[in-house]
Amino acid sequence: MTRHDPTRVIRPPMGSDLTCRSWLTEAPLRMLMNNLHPDVAERPEDLVVYGGVGRAARDWESYDRIVETLRRLGDDETLLVQSGKPVGVFRTHADAPRVLIANSNLVPRWATWEHFNELDRKGLAMYGQMTAGSWIYIGAQGIVQGTYETFVEMGRQHYAGDLSGRWLLTAGLGGMGAAQPLAAVMAGASCLAIECQPSRIEMRLRTGYLDRATESLDEALAIIEQSCRDRAPVSVGLLGNACELLPEIYARGVRPDLLTDQTSAHDPVNGYLPKGWSLERWAAMREQAPDQVEDAARASMAEHVEAMLAFRAAGVPTVDYGNNIRQVAKDAGVANAFDFPGFVPAYIRPLFCRGIGPFRWAALSGDPEDIYRTDAKVKELIPDNPHLHNWLDMARERIRFQGLPARICWVGLGDRHRLGLAFNEMVARGELKAPVVIGRDHLDSGSVASPNRETEAMRDGSDAVSDWPLLNALLNTASGATWVSLHHGGGVGMGYSQHAGMVIVCDGSDAAARRIERVLWNDPATGVMRHADAGYEIALEVAREKQLDLPGILG
Amino acid sequence: MTRHDPTRVIRPPMGSDLTCRSWLTEAPLRMLMNNLHPDVAERPEDLVVYGGVGRAARDWESYDRIVETLRRLGDDETLLVQSGKPVGVFRTHADAPRVLIANSNLVPRWATWEHFNELDRKGLAMYGQMTAGSWIYIGAQGIVQGTYETFVEMGRQHYAGDLSGRWLLTAGLGGMGAAQPLAAVMAGASCLAIECQPSRIEMRLRTGYLDRATESLDEALAIIEQSCRDRAPVSVGLLGNACELLPEIYARGVRPDLLTDQTSAHDPVNGYLPKGWSLERWAAMREQAPDQVEDAARASMAEHVEAMLAFRAAGVPTVDYGNNIRQVAKDAGVANAFDFPGFVPAYIRPLFCRGIGPFRWAALSGDPEDIYRTDAKVKELIPDNPHLHNWLDMARERIRFQGLPARICWVGLGDRHRLGLAFNEMVARGELKAPVVIGRDHLDSGSVASPNRETEAMRDGSDAVSDWPLLNALLNTASGATWVSLHHGGGVGMGYSQHAGMVIVCDGSDAAARRIERVLWNDPATGVMRHADAGYEIALEVAREKQLDLPGILG
Ligand SMILES: NC(=O)c1ccc[n+]([C@@H]2O[C@H](COP(=O)([O-])OP(=O)(O)OC[C@H]3O[C@@H](n4cnc5c(N)ncnc54)[C@H](O)[C@@H]3O)[C@@H](O)[C@H]2O)c1
Ligand SMILES: NC(=O)c1ccc[n+]([C@@H]2O[C@H](COP(=O)([O-])OP(=O)(O)OC[C@H]3O[C@@H](n4cnc5c(N)ncnc54)[C@H](O)[C@@H]3O)[C@@H](O)[C@H]2O)c1
Repeated sequence: MTRHDPTRVIRPPMGSDLTCRSWLTEAPLRMLMNNLHPDVAERPEDLVVYGGVGRAARDWESYDRIVETLRRLGDDETLLVQSGKPVGVFRTHADAPRVLIANSNLVPRWATWEHFNELDRKGLAMYGQMTAGSWIYIGAQGIVQGTYETFVEMGRQHYAGDLSGRWLLTAGLGGMGAAQPLAAVMAGASCLAIECQPSRIEMRLRTGYLDRATESLDEALAIIEQSCRDRAPVSVGLLGNACELLPEIYARGVRPDLLTDQTSAHDPVNGYLPKGWSLERWAAMREQAPDQVEDAARASMAEHVEAMLAFRAAGVPTVDYGNNIRQVAKDAGVANAFDFPGFVPAYIRPLFCRGIGPFRWAALSGDPEDIYRTDAKVKELIPDNPHLHNWLDMARERIRFQGLPARICWVGLGDRHRLGLAFNEMVARGELKAPVVIGRDHLDSGSVASPNRETEAMRDGSDAVSDWPLLNALLNTASGATWVSLHHGGGVGMGYSQHAGMVIVCDGSDAAARRIERVLWNDPATGVMRHADAGYEIALEVAREKQLDLPGILG
Repeated sequence: MTRHDPTRVIRPPMGSDLTCRSWLTEAPLRMLMNNLHPDVAERPEDLVVYGGVGRAARDWESYDRIVETLRRLGDDETLLVQSGKPVGVFRTHADAPRVLIANSNLVPRWATWEHFNELDRKGLAMYGQMTAGSWIYIGAQGIVQGTYETFVEMGRQHYAGDLSGRWLLTAGLGGMGAAQPLAAVMAGASCLAIECQPSRIEMRLRTGYLDRATESLDEALAIIEQSCRDRAPVSVGLLGNACELLPEIYARGVRPDLLTDQTSAHDPVNGYLPKGWSLERWAAMREQAPDQVEDAARASMAEHVEAMLAFRAAGVPTVDYGNNIRQVAKDAGVANAFDFPGFVPAYIRPLFCRGIGPFRWAALSGDPEDIYRTDAKVKELIPDNPHLHNWLDMARERIRFQGLPARICWVGLGDRHRLGLAFNEMVARGELKAPVVIGRDHLDSGSVASPNRETEAMRDGSDAVSDWPLLNALLNTASGATWVSLHHGGGVGMGYSQHAGMVIVCDGSDAAARRIERVLWNDPATGVMRHADAGYEIALEVAREKQLDLPGILG
């Protein structure tokens, strides 16, 4: 089992020639490789894509075998991937998925980081995060729009829709966290982001996610102050440990206008630098004494959350950004850790009720023009949504592509299948250079059960019911998605979530059109269904308006 | 929400006329109803089929809506059932399942009886057990062969293959447990089964699973002693509490030749009568103070296991029969509760390595002759297996059908699809009066992760990895099973297992033949794959012999 191999540099094939037997297998091949592209993955030499140790394949041997297998896979066969290892190829049929994936799933009583890490050390496991192990991560871009939508909504709720002259304080510039400075600036606010690893800060500067960087708190605060005075939003990366700097900022009497955090708190062994530790000590101790790292990280996170609670008590709108840091702090004794809300119930749920979520697509050709053409198509098909048009313009201007060009657009039930069919048409007519894949985050309306994040504080108390993501995966399989995945522990860590992914290929064929119409309708419809069942009025209305057939819910 | 309705008496339609639009929807309708047939279900008025509170539908309203929906469902539509409630109908295609089911699934950190019961009281949950909520329970018969195979294997390992003059001591004559006395007698041993509910004993006498009954321990022991002396196996139901009687039997110096237990220990609130309690008190307290029932039941189970350990120490071969009683006792402080093994690693795993497990089918016509004809076909197609022929003969002679006539036969990879195709042919040729459905228990080779039962003590330590049952369900969906289910907590209770079911219809069509060939090959093949991945030599051999395509396992 080889996990670390710095000689490996993976880039997907581009252009319109096949290296597999069809686009239905070429697509997962390119997307797997794209997840490990040097501009996309956080630590490609370790197969780590993002989010702590979220991997695309279990080890390099498994990676090689997946690639070999996809190259030979027929269009009536299905490859099974078990925690990043290709375990079997079975005869299915043309309308069945080509790849079925299950990552990191553990029987509940054993669903802890402790047991997972034990299995992982034996080579029996892989952490798939959400889109790492399901091959539809598209770089920090994937999260920018969600982060932007969240900040815009925060501005609406707390500052009457105007974030100019305001600033956000946060930490973590990893795969997801890096979206924060860019999204904040897009939303009109400045951003101070604390990050402990110089390499992360450098990467964000290089890829245009971050405007400036400093190692000095004084300098950082001065830049922010000036930018707010000038109403000229800027983002600053500050090298340091959030757990040390937050209390210091508080003590100085400085108050941000918004506060959150995106360190990898969901993974106490690998994701959070303990207070007072050097990066070298952190790296060494993760190898030698992971238990000690975990204890120290948990204690530090408790202090971190206490600092957040202090800001909150001082009137700063504070939100948990989906990394489970409140739960860790609560388990470490911070009784009121859940006093500040999660971002989903606070800002995102109304969108989920309409089946709206992080819809995304990638151009397998590798040609940015293909994405620009789809951007134009989206505007054409959804003409009356200025917010969306504005997003597309800003995205084109501000977001550099990483790996295969891709786009994210929060759209919902009723729009997704129309866009998919239109893209498929464009492929058929030769308007795009190669097929396009369409997928989404597992963080979506019908695809996840995660009581500390996506399903926090559901109206009917059904936060922990995970029948929903399982049904979502089964239905996407039955509807003909090209690949389907079922994961455990994404976002918030082992024990805290179950979620499903799907990706579908637009290869321009009629058969693809039939599958696209089913999958891209059914998938968001399960989200409307789940929220309608929980009693949300908006979801019930949308279900009626879209004439969903929900026997036990609509009667 | 109506859960109790004594006016309801459900019997499936029989014969060869459709009440739905096709056999693909008629089949789940008849099998759902069959699960609730008065001769099949333990408490049909409460929708309880077996195994504690294993239900077929969440409540009577949900039952009615499922029935209505199946009656109108088209052959390009799929019904989603979420914990026994029909939540949605979606457009899929002819080769997709007609019903997809997810029951009792909870995000791990919340996967406890406590949280489940809270949801259940709010009407948000249903316990599906294994085949109750997935509509392929066929009465105690379903378990008889597994129990018989287990007892035969116990005889082989401990008594040189000869159980004559020997006796088994056990408890629990519920839906599954009732198989024990019959299977013991079939295997050549006498059986003393302790059961606390008179109604259960009466039902087993009436249906031929039990030979005799008594309320007196003296009388029971006398009958057993006599039968052993005469080498004339007999089964005796003894009314009483196992937790009280086991220590007494031990104290008297009486030693059985085999010892096990099938009370519903997996469900401490509903499944185990505490020591010293009357049935009336038990029933009343379950309503009023479930927590107190649970505490008392756990303490009693600890004493029960201590008695089992004492017998074991005295040399009596003792085995946990899959009800999680060791775990309950361990949690209650019995440190050495796991000193006696579970029945799977002890007796069943070698079969699982070949993909052999509780394969079963039912005649939708309701005509026993249909089953006798399939029995003959099995003998014809598997001519060289005297053990199997013997089983079929005994089953025909000794096992009364309950509800729709059905048969169980432990067969594996390579045989299952041949039998399925042959049955489908028989339907096509009019040799059977109506279509047949083929399914299996969730307790099967590739469909379950349950570290205290089916996956106890796996060779590589992967007991708790539940990617396997999830992949099994996804693959069966992709292969075209007629209905597919994913459950949590079956057999061993909340938190301890995840498992999948599948049923496929033989309607005599060519399309069905193609689906049958795929599903009944792929499904057991996932079991061989799972055991090959864990390093079992037999499974690796079978995988090679059957030329399975297992890239990451066989290389
Ligand atoms: N809100 C969402 O939509 C969403 C989506 C996906 C993931 N997440 C969660 O957000 C978190 C971050 O995700 P990611 O992909 O960016 O993870 P990542 O592991 O790539 O990045 C985390 C970053 O935090 C930094 N960090 C760790 N400890 C620190 C400390 N004490 N002080 C300062 N910096 C520290 C690390 O150096 C790293 O760069 C995860 O918990 C993830 O599950 C949220
Ligand atoms: N080994 C297997 O293959 C297998 C398969 C399925 C289920 N099981 C497990 O076996 C157990 C029994 O299943 P079931 O379907 O028969 O359950 P059930 O609930 O229908 O029956 C349990 C029986 O135990 C009796 N009982 C409870 N407490 C008792 C006590 N203290 N003394 C005497 N009798 C008592 C009950 O009255 C009831 O009749 C369950 O835990 C189930 O999960 C095992």
